[in-house]
Amino acid sequence: MTDLDEMAIRPATEEDLPAIVAMLADDPLGATRESPDGLTPYIAAFKHLADAPHQHVVVAVRGDHVVGTLQLTVVPGLSRKGATRSIIEGVRVHADERGRGLGTRLIQWAVDRSLRENCQLVQLTSDATRTDAHRFYERLGFTASHVGFKLSL
Amino acid sequence: MTDLDEMAIRPATEEDLPAIVAMLADDPLGATRESPDGLTPYIAAFKHLADAPHQHVVVAVRGDHVVGTLQLTVVPGLSRKGATRSIIEGVRVHADERGRGLGTRLIQWAVDRSLRENCQLVQLTSDATRTDAHRFYERLGFTASHVGFKLSL
Repeated sequence: MTDLDEMAIRPATEEDLPAIVAMLADDPLGATRESPDGLTPYIAAFKHLADAPHQHVVVAVRGDHVVGTLQLTVVPGLSRKGATRSIIEGVRVHADERGRGLGTRLIQWAVDRSLRENCQLVQLTSDATRTDAHRFYERLGFTASHVGFKLSL
Repeated sequence: MTDLDEMAIRPATEEDLPAIVAMLADDPLGATRESPDGLTPYIAAFKHLADAPHQHVVVAVRGDHVVGTLQLTVVPGLSRKGATRSIIEGVRVHADERGRGLGTRLIQWAVDRSLRENCQLVQLTSDATRTDAHRFYERLGFTASHVGFKLSL
């Protein structure tokens, strides 16, 4: 039995938020834009997510420990013959768990869930500086076919 | 009074689908993946979109003519202190209308709507081959900060 066999992926609850936010902040980019000591905005956002049937925020847990997270959004659309796509955001693996296959398990969960929701396409954007992440997604079969544009409001 | 003064942007209806799909297909990439002669899958997809409060499919109309379209999806999230973001997909301007500022008007509509929905970020991906589109988005203030990955299911 490997370490990963003891791991489960389940829907996140409000009680998981401190651990999720700590992971979001423990990251070169996240460190500059998260506030792990002030959970109020995260709790408010989580209520919106929990109410939305097309939103899936999950955590990977080992025993009582939250060790990974991602958000999957299911988006119907007209293009590509009315294809439904899914969008992955906020992928994080706890620092103690990196390099052991947990990221792959999380993305595989997202792909399986997308298939169950009849999606024809899974997509995500990754900051141009995250070159290790880019290799990771390409190993999993994703194609870096697009440029991702953002506008802060 | 300019041409654009006579144009309006409004929510799409099912009656707009033939014109929307014709625009999706009249495109180097869309030509290979759309089916303007078979509207059934688009009608099914439109019903999902019309029912979803966080989905906004709009058309630009001049008189009785549909001359542009885009889809805006509002996505709450945990990262960036619980930021809500919006995602733009399926931007199309009718071939007869290109170069007259309609694309800018459509994106400006999406930005305004995103502000009204309390989004902190607007994002989109553009195929790496659409270099004219990339310059267009950069002129509008977007930053090409990310790599967009896709996985067909």
